[in-house]
Amino acid sequence: MANKPASRTITVAAAQLGPNQKSASRESILERMLKLMDEAASKRVQLIAYPELALTTFFPIHYMTDEDEIAGYFEPASAKDPYAVLSSPHAKTLVDKANHLGIDFYVGFAERWTGDDGSMTDFNTCIYYSVAARNGVGKYRKVHLPGRTEPLPDPKAFQQLEKKYFTPGDLGFQAFRAPGLIQGALKAEDVEPGIESQGKGDPILGMLICNDRRWPEAWRPYGLQGVELVIEGYNTTAWAPQHDGTPEEQQDLAEFHHRLSCQAGSYQNALWSINVAKCGVENDQGLIGCSLIIDPFGRIVAESTTMGDELIVATIDLQMCQAQRNRVFNFEKHRRPEHYDIILNQVGLREIPLLSSSL
Amino acid sequence: MANKPASRTITVAAAQLGPNQKSASRESILERMLKLMDEAASKRVQLIAYPELALTTFFPIHYMTDEDEIAGYFEPASAKDPYAVLSSPHAKTLVDKANHLGIDFYVGFAERWTGDDGSMTDFNTCIYYSVAARNGVGKYRKVHLPGRTEPLPDPKAFQQLEKKYFTPGDLGFQAFRAPGLIQGALKAEDVEPGIESQGKGDPILGMLICNDRRWPEAWRPYGLQGVELVIEGYNTTAWAPQHDGTPEEQQDLAEFHHRLSCQAGSYQNALWSINVAKCGVENDQGLIGCSLIIDPFGRIVAESTTMGDELIVATIDLQMCQAQRNRVFNFEKHRRPEHYDIILNQVGLREIPLLSSSL
Repeated sequence: MANKPASRTITVAAAQLGPNQKSASRESILERMLKLMDEAASKRVQLIAYPELALTTFFPIHYMTDEDEIAGYFEPASAKDPYAVLSSPHAKTLVDKANHLGIDFYVGFAERWTGDDGSMTDFNTCIYYSVAARNGVGKYRKVHLPGRTEPLPDPKAFQQLEKKYFTPGDLGFQAFRAPGLIQGALKAEDVEPGIESQGKGDPILGMLICNDRRWPEAWRPYGLQGVELVIEGYNTTAWAPQHDGTPEEQQDLAEFHHRLSCQAGSYQNALWSINVAKCGVENDQGLIGCSLIIDPFGRIVAESTTMGDELIVATIDLQMCQAQRNRVFNFEKHRRPEHYDIILNQVGLREIPLLSSSL
Repeated sequence: MANKPASRTITVAAAQLGPNQKSASRESILERMLKLMDEAASKRVQLIAYPELALTTFFPIHYMTDEDEIAGYFEPASAKDPYAVLSSPHAKTLVDKANHLGIDFYVGFAERWTGDDGSMTDFNTCIYYSVAARNGVGKYRKVHLPGRTEPLPDPKAFQQLEKKYFTPGDLGFQAFRAPGLIQGALKAEDVEPGIESQGKGDPILGMLICNDRRWPEAWRPYGLQGVELVIEGYNTTAWAPQHDGTPEEQQDLAEFHHRLSCQAGSYQNALWSINVAKCGVENDQGLIGCSLIIDPFGRIVAESTTMGDELIVATIDLQMCQAQRNRVFNFEKHRRPEHYDIILNQVGLREIPLLSSSL
């Protein structure tokens, strides 16, 4: 039956990672990632997501000046080989296993890009590897880098130096399709004028990294491009000595803000999301867990329960996005960009003028 | 001490209203509103918020064709008297009591605007009345109108016809200052070059109505203008026969989406919000309650517990907005509008192109 709509149901997993200590070798980290992929295969998972900077420790919270030490955390890439990481010893075993098991994956890593002129730029990056394409089919570079360019002077302070080690992402929010994930997807050559193709092609995915999830400006571009699933990896500090509250109070608040941001992003754009943590106590610094798979109504359908390596799995129907897109979040009918100018035309907060005392 | 910073603590209330049946007179509705204002005064409230379309039944869910019947729900306004409603018999007693008790208020109503050329335009509007100014100091017209312009053909279907009865708001999202709410606010004439005035003037407020709260594009303009408190009134359908799930399931989901939207909007813009319902069973249609006062960290600090007339009160420190504005949501440091183009330049969802079968 040529007209029978293809099922848009896929099985996905968040591969939460426990801490990667500074002392951990790349090989030992990869071994844990491969083990989680084997477990995923046993559960018929088709797409597995690993966290932000999965291949190393979360180095941006350490102040380093030794360029060789810093370089050791990065993977090379260039226009000639934008997905070079996939053939590096640090990820090749992952690719081989993915091909063998038929599982696509998302993974975050630090990317050192060499331009045509030999210049180098460092990004906090993630890629999507497609088994059907035998290559990466999507790359995203973190736009909303948190933290500072220079360390805080207090030697006891917790440091967050992503703005020192990385350049803000320059690729924007590019949705992409993942071939082969579902059977019977409508292809470009199948479509004749007048045929409605929305929600019938290869799944449309988008990617975010960590702090991006707090910014509605990062989710909306994906919603507008028809993304059905956002994948987002994170390393989120549970507490810092210079912030208010006990470590427990701070961690509760950090987890609350994480859930709130991911659930709002999914709901307001009527899409699924996989949100996956690197967590636990890494080099004496606590990172939150709470890996989540969230439906297009913003409801959590799977959540991690540990602070270590853990696979959470859900079978998700991408078709569910359509219900909200036809009603509450029918963008065409309800959005009013003529009133959104300030979102683009002003970067920072600018208070409106003070009143005079005559009022 | 001229340099002692003024306390930015104020006491605010959400005056949740139970149902306004079609048969209820304006006088009987006003009587209930005045009673809530008296209760507010006894609790030293300085600012009280009434819901969307507080003065009437929630008429946009009824299909009407009689122009006189429709006109009966509207309040007049024009360039000559933009706050005409305040001197109408339908709100004058509210103004008199507000002046007597020293309580500012927010109220929603249907506004029929007569232009200079005699043309009439209808809006779903709210205003902010300032006792210190003895006038309205802010007006907002609902931008994100839900529903349809024409009724659904099924006579048993629940109707939502705001797009029939109202024109989308044409005022955008204009923040304003509320004079007199706090003592010692910095005034325009106090400021010399080089003096940091942020967070030291009269409180900066913004207003939304109902469905607006689901749209991050409606909150962000206020965050960018330094708003410390958003006030939002709503009438939100708990269930409809044509939607999935039992009435109870639908109501649970509607309440969840309401909380999620209001908490995310407050958190992501580091501001307080008052969200106030008209609720209960009105003309056989269930409306959700859950009036909320939310802090700049997205936490609920007060919530209604009934489905009728109820006052919830909180003493809030506007200074709390600054902590998040200096850190996670320091817009100047972290926002990247160069990647937000699509938010302004595209209205509806447009799926990215299909892949060809060669992939």
